[in-house]
Amino acid sequence: MVKKLTPMSQDFNQWYTDIIQEAQLADYSPVKGTMVIRPYGYALWENIQSYLDKRFKETGHENAYFPLFIPKSFIQKEAEHVEGFSPELATVTHAGGKELEEPLIVRPTSETIINHMFAKWIKSHRDLPMLINQWANVVRWEMRTRLFLRTSEFLWQEGHTAHQTKEEATEEALRMLDIYEEFTQNVAAVKVIKGTKSEIEKFAGAKVTYSIEAMMLDKKALQAGTSHELGQNFSKAFEIQYSDENNQLAHPYQTSWGVSTRLIGMIIMAHGDDKGLKLPPEIAPTQVVIIPIIPKNSNPSEILDAVNNIKALLEGLRVKIDDRSEVSPGFKFNEWELKGVPVRIEIGPKDLDKNSVIVARRDKADSKVETHIDELNLTINNLLKEIQENMFNESSNFLNNNTSHAEDMDQLIKKLNESEGFVSCYWSENKDDELKIKELTKATIRCYPLDNNDAKQSINKENEQGKFAIFSKSY
Amino acid sequence: MVKKLTPMSQDFNQWYTDIIQEAQLADYSPVKGTMVIRPYGYALWENIQSYLDKRFKETGHENAYFPLFIPKSFIQKEAEHVEGFSPELATVTHAGGKELEEPLIVRPTSETIINHMFAKWIKSHRDLPMLINQWANVVRWEMRTRLFLRTSEFLWQEGHTAHQTKEEATEEALRMLDIYEEFTQNVAAVKVIKGTKSEIEKFAGAKVTYSIEAMMLDKKALQAGTSHELGQNFSKAFEIQYSDENNQLAHPYQTSWGVSTRLIGMIIMAHGDDKGLKLPPEIAPTQVVIIPIIPKNSNPSEILDAVNNIKALLEGLRVKIDDRSEVSPGFKFNEWELKGVPVRIEIGPKDLDKNSVIVARRDKADSKVETHIDELNLTINNLLKEIQENMFNESSNFLNNNTSHAEDMDQLIKKLNESEGFVSCYWSENKDDELKIKELTKATIRCYPLDNNDAKQSINKENEQGKFAIFSKSY
Repeated sequence: MVKKLTPMSQDFNQWYTDIIQEAQLADYSPVKGTMVIRPYGYALWENIQSYLDKRFKETGHENAYFPLFIPKSFIQKEAEHVEGFSPELATVTHAGGKELEEPLIVRPTSETIINHMFAKWIKSHRDLPMLINQWANVVRWEMRTRLFLRTSEFLWQEGHTAHQTKEEATEEALRMLDIYEEFTQNVAAVKVIKGTKSEIEKFAGAKVTYSIEAMMLDKKALQAGTSHELGQNFSKAFEIQYSDENNQLAHPYQTSWGVSTRLIGMIIMAHGDDKGLKLPPEIAPTQVVIIPIIPKNSNPSEILDAVNNIKALLEGLRVKIDDRSEVSPGFKFNEWELKGVPVRIEIGPKDLDKNSVIVARRDKADSKVETHIDELNLTINNLLKEIQENMFNESSNFLNNNTSHAEDMDQLIKKLNESEGFVSCYWSENKDDELKIKELTKATIRCYPLDNNDAKQSINKENEQGKFAIFSKSY
Repeated sequence: MVKKLTPMSQDFNQWYTDIIQEAQLADYSPVKGTMVIRPYGYALWENIQSYLDKRFKETGHENAYFPLFIPKSFIQKEAEHVEGFSPELATVTHAGGKELEEPLIVRPTSETIINHMFAKWIKSHRDLPMLINQWANVVRWEMRTRLFLRTSEFLWQEGHTAHQTKEEATEEALRMLDIYEEFTQNVAAVKVIKGTKSEIEKFAGAKVTYSIEAMMLDKKALQAGTSHELGQNFSKAFEIQYSDENNQLAHPYQTSWGVSTRLIGMIIMAHGDDKGLKLPPEIAPTQVVIIPIIPKNSNPSEILDAVNNIKALLEGLRVKIDDRSEVSPGFKFNEWELKGVPVRIEIGPKDLDKNSVIVARRDKADSKVETHIDELNLTINNLLKEIQENMFNESSNFLNNNTSHAEDMDQLIKKLNESEGFVSCYWSENKDDELKIKELTKATIRCYPLDNNDAKQSINKENEQGKFAIFSKSY
């Protein structure tokens, strides 16, 4: 472990792959395109789950579990849905030693099976809103895969809801988008832009797709979460009907929304450096690592006692003691920096004499500070808050500093080709024009930001007003 | 909702199916043999997970996630394993619009893929013990399915570990069995017997399988959890080798262990009655339901305020207020009894005048007690403990009262055919004899209990000592 990482500036993609391997976040599996999430990576996912699950429940959602296998005929019921997902499906044709009468699809997403059940459960307006979430694995067969970002199987949550009115469905879709933003910014310390997707990027079967878009350290965009207004597309296709207060039958309005293990890829690429990961304290599996410095010929037990006392002082935090004797303190420093632990505490005989320790933070280089043990609990708690805040500010500044505005098509294309990060412009929604930009620059519209409702002359259509749009290359 | 349940005494199986539907624990899915776990059933699973996950971590295990798909060739590497699982496999033959070169198996259990990765990760004795757990879905194609007990897809956890010595592996397998026992008895309030499995019932690929066996209210056994010593079977098949302290290469000794959503079936069948579920307080999604009694022409707001105050008094407990106005209190009583909520609190104007409430417990009939609001918190907390204890004692007594001893083969067969519950005897392990009993009675050896090491003349072999064994019909 702790081989040399490829420097980020030299090859961002290789740096990303190296980190995942060296920090033991994930590993390649023998099945092409799938991955093994190792304990350190899974611990990040557990922290993501625990925050979001709490917020979903606070906002009235209940968890349930729907089958992995979906009859092929279900996928075909919603026209856009089947078109969007067909190329990515994995199919079970044999089971229990026999060929199946109808092939089963391994779920790429669960709108179809869940709405089939909703049709059974939703009878009256009293059954609405129905607010369901599922934590599950899904399969989308991918040709070009990348650990955490694009794998044939991934873990995610998918929320599925049904409401009486279009307004309620809109509110729900935006409420969940806000929760994603809250998680990403306050917990993962990554600045995001909330917006609506263009026609070519929206979910297959949705009326409107909202997303949060983050900027990675190579200035590319990463779509970190999506929330969809499905209108009545699925409730009509799956014949979900309820009787309203006047005993009239009606189709509910629906939403679905999801985030996945891709968020782990985001955390890696939004924060790291040439030494490895940088984890925000709120999500770090280990927030503080304590490393005893035991010189030769000294009595280790005194230092080890002190280390245990310090751990006890930091109750409530996620603290690890690294008391391995077979590796040097320097080796340990490198390893925990690679693993992105926010705070390191060192303690040796000289520190012990002064009843103090050395505290180093991961987010800033050369940040060693001597701290008296009496003040340690307060100092560390404050420091973790400061690191969290600093990391978010850095992410936010990075996004702002790498966003520029294009006044015409030539500027837009030039900026995107020079990889200047996010490029805003006024754009008249148009599939062909967007595909042309994509062909010339590999970039697409990441979103029409929700917080900018200006309408101005568009850069793509003469005498047409455009909406404020963000273009970027993306993962 | 709250249709009439089939009485337990009339048709136990139908009672079980009715309860699951009426209490909305699960539903049939359109794919034969699979089920939808509805929010109330899933909440039970979440409580099972949260208890066990904590205990797994306290005992040094880390969670990880391995791929759903396993190359067919992997399953074939361990001879007994492939023989045991072959009839139950589901196979993906097409993905991404193409036929796959090698078919992929949807995991029925993950020994093969996990040990393939262990071979990559385990190099030195310093990498041992390796203690991994996974929460996942698995697929075993079943012809005769039953909600929660036997479905083609189910949710479970599977622990997989590797150790330097056989002794450590034995300790680990028994440690996890103890945790399963602790959960089942202290949380699910179900008495279990810990033991080893006979040859015909052990896990395909294991050296020894341990299990916990519970008795359902129809006196049949349910295997609630298993823990396996795998010896070096898989470490040899998957070429896992580490260099020990003397730089010699060696194969580790391994274990695997698991419990599944079947535990929900156990909780239903170990406790319920003709009114519905009875949930032990430790696992109940709702521990206390408060029902306001609002007579016509009275002011509801006074009662509703009181109800909210009571809920506030019970902080820390899982409390629900049922203030629906469209159904009567009697309807609500039935519904919450059906759902097995341990404690019901009723409050109407007369109670309010006396500053008291009526408290009813689910586990005992006709148990209404008037309680002063000042004492409510203490009373309810004590009552929940008492219910938990009482339910375990009832389960324990039921098992003891329905266990008898057979002195010879005729007695064994007669007792098993008369469905007298568990039947113990001294048995000389022998596959053919056990299969004969199975043919005659449908019963098998549930286990050789760990707490009875006596050896006496066996009932199946002349002049051969037998071990103390428990026979029973089972789920």
